[in-house]
Amino acid sequence: MSSFRSLASDNNAGIHPHILQAIADANADHALGYGADVYTERAVAKFKSHFGDGIEVFFVFNGTGANVVSLSAITQPYQAVICAETAHIAVDECGAPEKFTGCKLIDVPTPDGKLTPALIAPHIKGIGDEHHVQVRVISITQSTELGTVYSLAEVRAIAELAHANGLLLHMDGARISNAAASLGCTLHQITRDCGVDVLSFGGTKNGLMLGEAVVWFRPELGQHTKYIRKQSMQLASKMRFIAAQFEALLSNDLWLHNAQHANQMAQALAAAVADVPQVSICRPVQANAVFAQIPLAWIEPLQTQSFFYVWDAAPNGNAALPEVRWMTSFDTTGEDVAKFVAALQDIASG
Amino acid sequence: MSSFRSLASDNNAGIHPHILQAIADANADHALGYGADVYTERAVAKFKSHFGDGIEVFFVFNGTGANVVSLSAITQPYQAVICAETAHIAVDECGAPEKFTGCKLIDVPTPDGKLTPALIAPHIKGIGDEHHVQVRVISITQSTELGTVYSLAEVRAIAELAHANGLLLHMDGARISNAAASLGCTLHQITRDCGVDVLSFGGTKNGLMLGEAVVWFRPELGQHTKYIRKQSMQLASKMRFIAAQFEALLSNDLWLHNAQHANQMAQALAAAVADVPQVSICRPVQANAVFAQIPLAWIEPLQTQSFFYVWDAAPNGNAALPEVRWMTSFDTTGEDVAKFVAALQDIASG
Amino acid sequence: MSSFRSLASDNNAGIHPHILQAIADANADHALGYGADVYTERAVAKFKSHFGDGIEVFFVFNGTGANVVSLSAITQPYQAVICAETAHIAVDECGAPEKFTGCKLIDVPTPDGKLTPALIAPHIKGIGDEHHVQVRVISITQSTELGTVYSLAEVRAIAELAHANGLLLHMDGARISNAAASLGCTLHQITRDCGVDVLSFGGTKNGLMLGEAVVWFRPELGQHTKYIRKQSMQLASKMRFIAAQFEALLSNDLWLHNAQHANQMAQALAAAVADVPQVSICRPVQANAVFAQIPLAWIEPLQTQSFFYVWDAAPNGNAALPEVRWMTSFDTTGEDVAKFVAALQDIASG
Amino acid sequence: MSSFRSLASDNNAGIHPHILQAIADANADHALGYGADVYTERAVAKFKSHFGDGIEVFFVFNGTGANVVSLSAITQPYQAVICAETAHIAVDECGAPEKFTGCKLIDVPTPDGKLTPALIAPHIKGIGDEHHVQVRVISITQSTELGTVYSLAEVRAIAELAHANGLLLHMDGARISNAAASLGCTLHQITRDCGVDVLSFGGTKNGLMLGEAVVWFRPELGQHTKYIRKQSMQLASKMRFIAAQFEALLSNDLWLHNAQHANQMAQALAAAVADVPQVSICRPVQANAVFAQIPLAWIEPLQTQSFFYVWDAAPNGNAALPEVRWMTSFDTTGEDVAKFVAALQDIASG
Repeated sequence: MSSFRSLASDNNAGIHPHILQAIADANADHALGYGADVYTERAVAKFKSHFGDGIEVFFVFNGTGANVVSLSAITQPYQAVICAETAHIAVDECGAPEKFTGCKLIDVPTPDGKLTPALIAPHIKGIGDEHHVQVRVISITQSTELGTVYSLAEVRAIAELAHANGLLLHMDGARISNAAASLGCTLHQITRDCGVDVLSFGGTKNGLMLGEAVVWFRPELGQHTKYIRKQSMQLASKMRFIAAQFEALLSNDLWLHNAQHANQMAQALAAAVADVPQVSICRPVQANAVFAQIPLAWIEPLQTQSFFYVWDAAPNGNAALPEVRWMTSFDTTGEDVAKFVAALQDIASG
Repeated sequence: MSSFRSLASDNNAGIHPHILQAIADANADHALGYGADVYTERAVAKFKSHFGDGIEVFFVFNGTGANVVSLSAITQPYQAVICAETAHIAVDECGAPEKFTGCKLIDVPTPDGKLTPALIAPHIKGIGDEHHVQVRVISITQSTELGTVYSLAEVRAIAELAHANGLLLHMDGARISNAAASLGCTLHQITRDCGVDVLSFGGTKNGLMLGEAVVWFRPELGQHTKYIRKQSMQLASKMRFIAAQFEALLSNDLWLHNAQHANQMAQALAAAVADVPQVSICRPVQANAVFAQIPLAWIEPLQTQSFFYVWDAAPNGNAALPEVRWMTSFDTTGEDVAKFVAALQDIASG
Repeated sequence: MSSFRSLASDNNAGIHPHILQAIADANADHALGYGADVYTERAVAKFKSHFGDGIEVFFVFNGTGANVVSLSAITQPYQAVICAETAHIAVDECGAPEKFTGCKLIDVPTPDGKLTPALIAPHIKGIGDEHHVQVRVISITQSTELGTVYSLAEVRAIAELAHANGLLLHMDGARISNAAASLGCTLHQITRDCGVDVLSFGGTKNGLMLGEAVVWFRPELGQHTKYIRKQSMQLASKMRFIAAQFEALLSNDLWLHNAQHANQMAQALAAAVADVPQVSICRPVQANAVFAQIPLAWIEPLQTQSFFYVWDAAPNGNAALPEVRWMTSFDTTGEDVAKFVAALQDIASG
Repeated sequence: MSSFRSLASDNNAGIHPHILQAIADANADHALGYGADVYTERAVAKFKSHFGDGIEVFFVFNGTGANVVSLSAITQPYQAVICAETAHIAVDECGAPEKFTGCKLIDVPTPDGKLTPALIAPHIKGIGDEHHVQVRVISITQSTELGTVYSLAEVRAIAELAHANGLLLHMDGARISNAAASLGCTLHQITRDCGVDVLSFGGTKNGLMLGEAVVWFRPELGQHTKYIRKQSMQLASKMRFIAAQFEALLSNDLWLHNAQHANQMAQALAAAVADVPQVSICRPVQANAVFAQIPLAWIEPLQTQSFFYVWDAAPNGNAALPEVRWMTSFDTTGEDVAKFVAALQDIASG
């Protein structure tokens, strides 16, 4: 790895200083385990200050845990979850959702990582037919795994389709803050106002050491979550240290500043590389990811200077122009971007 | 909760300062996610310095996760795990082992939390009978949930029984350090030398913010652990911050000092309360837990001053003398013990 | 196997002629699959004629299937099922209940295969504690795996305990007909009247080729059973051939005659062997099983003549007097019993 | 349902008389349960006479059971199964494969129900990546759910792809006999010779009352099948009555005659309806299914006379010409076909 911060992933970043300080501050005396402590109480209050009253919040260790706990609470094994073919739950969780919920995931191809009512509707079928899994949940990721962002209207339309069919809407918000920052709206507007039923709220990718939260906007759906969280191996004994991080993240707009900064760095990167010959930005840059196609021969030398992932080795069968992913994070600096672009230009100019 | 540190549980303690410093020190620049970083490399090397070469180490979030990942890797759903009726996997994990492995747990009553070959043997039956679950693993906890410690010879005898019957031995070592400190032996001696096949190595209860490890002494058994860990929702993206804690714990005998100290505080507490009328220590104090029977009427006023758990509301049917559990931890001070004993004496003297 | 019918198990018997005739009679033209046929309609009507209206009936393949479908419909994976240590679900289903429901089975030792409120009550604990599985179901077997029969009052007492604690009562009725015959009561009295919530109704052991039924006395509990049955691999496509068997079994008191006959043969057997020296009947003979202790040396020669199972190789540690099980069935004849007793006497007299 | 046999499904047919006779013949005296009987021994010998020595055969209740037992034996939960989007395991088993194996099913769109190496290859990815399920099995259906048949060369090509990538090939042979009859080859040629590793051998759709078999061509893969079958609720106690059916089916070419007849009736039906205006056969008729598009208005009156299923209410979005499925079976007569065609013509001519 090079000496500067890489663009491999926003989880390659470290802990934001305010978050680390919150951990240190929580490290005084004893606190009851498993969430029966004042830090958890205060963190939940912070969530309510953003999302409104009448919610329930459960802290968990990681994003896969948040998604699995959410989905487990609202499904039976004979049911199904509709998601984009590129969804984290479909391709990046090693089958944890299927294993733990017992459900089938119905993976729907999309052009841009975003489901739409038109894409979803054909899969709401076989209802009442015992041979067929029964669709129960639509799961969308905001911002998506492809760096795109659903508009509020787009989420609302999916929520309406879901509810009209007796289904529930789960949002994988591992990067919900980036999406809110991108849309310029509040956390409340981007979730509860749009009809989301349950949210996996992401912390780790936005400056936490680790920690995610399951947020129920209709708590009656999640009334058994505490058992499911424990059985899902997602209950922290020293909960205060996860809670304290969230309290800090949701204070003084830290969540927003971190996300805005990451998004801006992605914009800066996209703008800078747009001028490099043979580089083409291949997806809308709406959050903190830049997807680009670059010549195959550049990959290795560029990775040697700053590691990143090849997203698709042969987009549309074209192995000569692989698609790569560059992600910015709360701690990416303008200098990091400049250095990376310089390295790219250097390789480009042979 | 009172102003002094309680005896409720060793997970009510915070983070040891050296561990917190290790987290802060690891918070520089970027690191590849999921364990492909130098902190993880160094932490694994530390494990090898204690347990010898030829092991494999996988860090996970919590103790339930460590146990479930361990057991999942060595069982098929039609098999069974023998454990003590008081084992954490049997009573404190909300059924996670059954849910995730699909296996039956065969919970064996014991007088002191410790299995013995004589207690285990009758349950190794129905082998080859398709109607009966097939015993595959014996799981023991060291130190036990009742504060007792297996001698090396006791563990060895169980390992021999296991291996003679084609079974594997799992050790739940959530408090393995306390056991080693109690026995005055090395981590190697207390596990690998005794024939343990796989160990859940505990960090959280011995000064970590959070973090446990699955340690394979026969790596061929655990060769698919990386997939199981991910599917079990136990793979941390910012792994370096768990690894760094373990590196610190296993350096400069911190693991041992923390455990020795907690054990000594338990001895001090036991010695002090032994003189209090109507208090009877009801289990051997071999690690960092003191189990005592005290008059029912004392419970509430004492808990008000310093919270602790009632372990058995009516031992042998005697509701007048509940059994309580007092646990010491790495940060329990002599003053904490003295204050607690004073509070107890105060109540005792009416 | 000897030329006469053995006492190995009531599932070693064949198909009652009326049942086989019913299969043949149903074999005309086509019928819609999966239960949408008139045979199924008529069989369900027969169940209602015995159990009353307001029930739901689902036919399945085997007893394990009936138990697992029943339990799956009324549990979540973080819950638990209390059963006798000798229950079929605990020891004879290769862990299917744990695997399919995800639940923990709490196996309670009993003197005679029968749970009692006093035996059950201590296991209703940890309610509301997320670390502990949440007890949801009490499962009893009628008649039991040890050949004993719960009185109506005994079942009622368990149902009351269950309902008072918000639990449900499942009855494994693989031999429910033998129990009803033994008690001289109707199928309605022995189940619904006693507060049973869901019944696994046995057919195979009482003269069917194969077939069991899940019977819901509170249909709202089982409203998703059709999906669970299919997902549990228990939905027959040519359902009419299972349904037709049940229609015949529940017509003209065939269920009762078969069961009465089997029970009478067990009584006859018990009476006859009581006089054989060194043979001791070791459990009450209340249904169609006789448990006896006989000298070890007799086992092999007797099995050679007529196979049966050793139930306990060393009851109370006494390997010299193993406990064996002799089961009678609807087709056991007086001559079968006489021949078996003669063989036993022959061996006894050396 | 009309008075003549319908074309709804081959599982709407009854029991072939020879099969029913075999059940009756097996109904003499007692037989040990669970397969330890001579009928099972003889049935397995019959399988060996067709498939060769060195195989293992396990009888189960239904097709879903055969598929799930097969797949469970060769997968771990973090693995995946590639199948056609139209596969029975993907759409007709209510999620049983996912629930029981824990695996993800990767459902691949196909033009005709048949996978090809080119369709499969892109899904063999993420190997060694712990975030991604690990592909372990390719499952194909022969004949397919769309009435098409893989040629021997096509199966061989898939087997080669599988084995070259360390994968296994499962064949769902619910209608394997129809496929063999269609290809004019032996059961050995269509499976073992082509590199199939494990076969779900279908009986129910070819004249049995009920019964399927899991056939291992590499028995080392299935060495734990007996436990998995029991835990999957697929072990019949009175096994002889399933075994006897298979013995009859595999004797005197009954399996072949039944399948040939059904196939011929499908050909006759296809030929006859080809001349009916506005009816278009929309898939190759290679086994015992005819798929046709007919005017929407005809559906109801035709179903009233003889029920059948609408396969696709709007093929390519065209709701005016739904796609229907007509299936023939071993007992479909020329007269049945003639009557059905007459009814169709009658409706067609207004």
